[in-house]
Amino acid sequence: MIYLDNAATTFPKPLSVVKEVNRAMSFYAANPGRSGHSVAMKAGSMVYNCRGAVARLFNVENIENVVFTHNCTHAINTVLKGVLKKGDHVVISNMEHNSVARPLKALEEMGVTFTQAAVYENDNDSTVNSFRNAINANTRLIACTHASNVWGIKLPVERLSALAHEYGIEIMVDAAQSAGVVPIDFAESKIDYLCMPGHKGLYGPSGTGVMIVRNPQGLSPLMQGGTGSSSISFEHPEFMPDKFECGTVNVVGIAGLLRGIEFVSARSEKRIFNHEMRLIKRLYGNLASMKRVQLYTEYPNDDCCVPLLSFNLKGLNSEAVAQRLNKDFGIAVRAGLHCAPSAHIAKGTQDIGAVRVCPSIFNTDADIQRFTNAVNKIR
Amino acid sequence: MIYLDNAATTFPKPLSVVKEVNRAMSFYAANPGRSGHSVAMKAGSMVYNCRGAVARLFNVENIENVVFTHNCTHAINTVLKGVLKKGDHVVISNMEHNSVARPLKALEEMGVTFTQAAVYENDNDSTVNSFRNAINANTRLIACTHASNVWGIKLPVERLSALAHEYGIEIMVDAAQSAGVVPIDFAESKIDYLCMPGHKGLYGPSGTGVMIVRNPQGLSPLMQGGTGSSSISFEHPEFMPDKFECGTVNVVGIAGLLRGIEFVSARSEKRIFNHEMRLIKRLYGNLASMKRVQLYTEYPNDDCCVPLLSFNLKGLNSEAVAQRLNKDFGIAVRAGLHCAPSAHIAKGTQDIGAVRVCPSIFNTDADIQRFTNAVNKIR
Repeated sequence: MIYLDNAATTFPKPLSVVKEVNRAMSFYAANPGRSGHSVAMKAGSMVYNCRGAVARLFNVENIENVVFTHNCTHAINTVLKGVLKKGDHVVISNMEHNSVARPLKALEEMGVTFTQAAVYENDNDSTVNSFRNAINANTRLIACTHASNVWGIKLPVERLSALAHEYGIEIMVDAAQSAGVVPIDFAESKIDYLCMPGHKGLYGPSGTGVMIVRNPQGLSPLMQGGTGSSSISFEHPEFMPDKFECGTVNVVGIAGLLRGIEFVSARSEKRIFNHEMRLIKRLYGNLASMKRVQLYTEYPNDDCCVPLLSFNLKGLNSEAVAQRLNKDFGIAVRAGLHCAPSAHIAKGTQDIGAVRVCPSIFNTDADIQRFTNAVNKIR
Repeated sequence: MIYLDNAATTFPKPLSVVKEVNRAMSFYAANPGRSGHSVAMKAGSMVYNCRGAVARLFNVENIENVVFTHNCTHAINTVLKGVLKKGDHVVISNMEHNSVARPLKALEEMGVTFTQAAVYENDNDSTVNSFRNAINANTRLIACTHASNVWGIKLPVERLSALAHEYGIEIMVDAAQSAGVVPIDFAESKIDYLCMPGHKGLYGPSGTGVMIVRNPQGLSPLMQGGTGSSSISFEHPEFMPDKFECGTVNVVGIAGLLRGIEFVSARSEKRIFNHEMRLIKRLYGNLASMKRVQLYTEYPNDDCCVPLLSFNLKGLNSEAVAQRLNKDFGIAVRAGLHCAPSAHIAKGTQDIGAVRVCPSIFNTDADIQRFTNAVNKIR
């Protein structure tokens, strides 16, 4: 099989990740922070190490501001519901995933409003302006994806962060498609809330997500429960990271995530990006020369894109193309709407969806060639 | 090492669980419900199979009412925050874990109140009466643990369920210490919300929990996001299980959980209970005959207990005893307050905590004997 669905989850995982998960399952999957015995201490120290690895990769000064979540959606919900109050307004992009849009839609019931700002491909000035124009007197937060999970278009989040702070508001960035692929400097960018999955560009197992918070005291927790700390108190602790981690954390997942982050750190995001981007550019070139192939974005640009590409074959439904790729050619991609209806509406593909291709560090030129040949046969 | 901290998480896991996690990591850890390709379909079918295995073990009629969560605390928070509104009153027991008590404490801010009903050891009539007396005109929910994670005292949840329905209110049961050890018939008991971890008595990996819901339409979701379903809509879907599962589920964890549940089903909860209860009774007998050992509960009774036991050595702090057991004897137990302050207050151990022993199916008579010998040396 040629797996090109890495925007949904990276697969395969590095061998070091698979092995560590197996080692955790076999030797130290105890409950960290709950008991003082050796195996719980080992689990606890691994969780701490992973927190440190996240902090180093994203340049987070305070390691305790790194919170482990169930997935990126859990992180995003925690931020949106922990920050926003009745009457607050939020600016999002027109490229948001349902993980951002749906919680906001639900928050409308309690009087939160939001506006979609248009993203301009290869024109960050216009994008920043579009966000600026959407800010009003009640705006409390900018919440946006770092990169569209459909079109690969990257948003200038560092500039949007500066914009937010210019207006005295905060910014949350959904790094679902960028973490591990595009370097993000949490300290430098002054992003207030950075959310990401552990199982995509960080090459960890499913069941892992990360939320990094600049000022935890301003964020209310979404859940409360046992933390193994201040146990005598009915009040959930206010200190980090316990404030946002309750119940047993995913020790086994975090063990794998640690190795995934080490894998990324050893290669560097830049090298991973370059490798994947080269494949995407090659694919773009191949597809652009084929009749009946509909592309929706400009030639990929290192400054404004992440390495993924969506297209259609004219006259064919995207799902049908993906099915044929799977069935006849053993190629795994994702078609349809990718849980991001606005992004499809922006390009007019909401009815047919699109075929999305996203390589990982493990894909090769040969994979892209075989993919190209398959598309050539299908069209 | 002799691991007797199975109330925190079971360890070791069955070999079939370890192997399946490894197989999932290696061969099919794709994103289920997102893509139509073979490996995503395999992941999806495994998740479906696990849902079915849960439904069979707990006799749930509608398999889609089985929801996978991050852990038991996530499940409990979802229920409490999805059911309770301003002005609502809740009856809990005086044995609750912080996973129940702390969310309720947080809900006080929005006008929810709660009352602790005393649990009477070996006297279910008095316990039921105590709950009945705590119900008032505003009571909306009974929320209680199935069994104390400190004292092993089991609550008559079937009778409490009948009591709740007699008053036209609902009941949520926290089965953290009972699922997989005590048979629970969801259909028969008419429990409205059943919450449990996947990584304790069900022998799954960390990062897994389960929420079973009788009437999903009455429960608001705690989070919204991508579900891979109805993607065009900004509204989070109302159908099950998508209503409560957003973002990528813990595929790898659920793969392991499936094998864990099969492991439990093959042996039956009754046999697991009998094995562990025999060990606890033996331990009780051993400890009861030792001077300086303080026991807090009656001799374990199959009808009113789950197989775990907490005690102290007079004049010694529970943490100090646990440390010595770990360091000098290689025995893992948990001391302190076990995230359940009320349960300790009920027995007057809130200052010193207690040493908790909880066997799993993998513990033996020899383990109990070595534990006994170790306590004998320490005292």
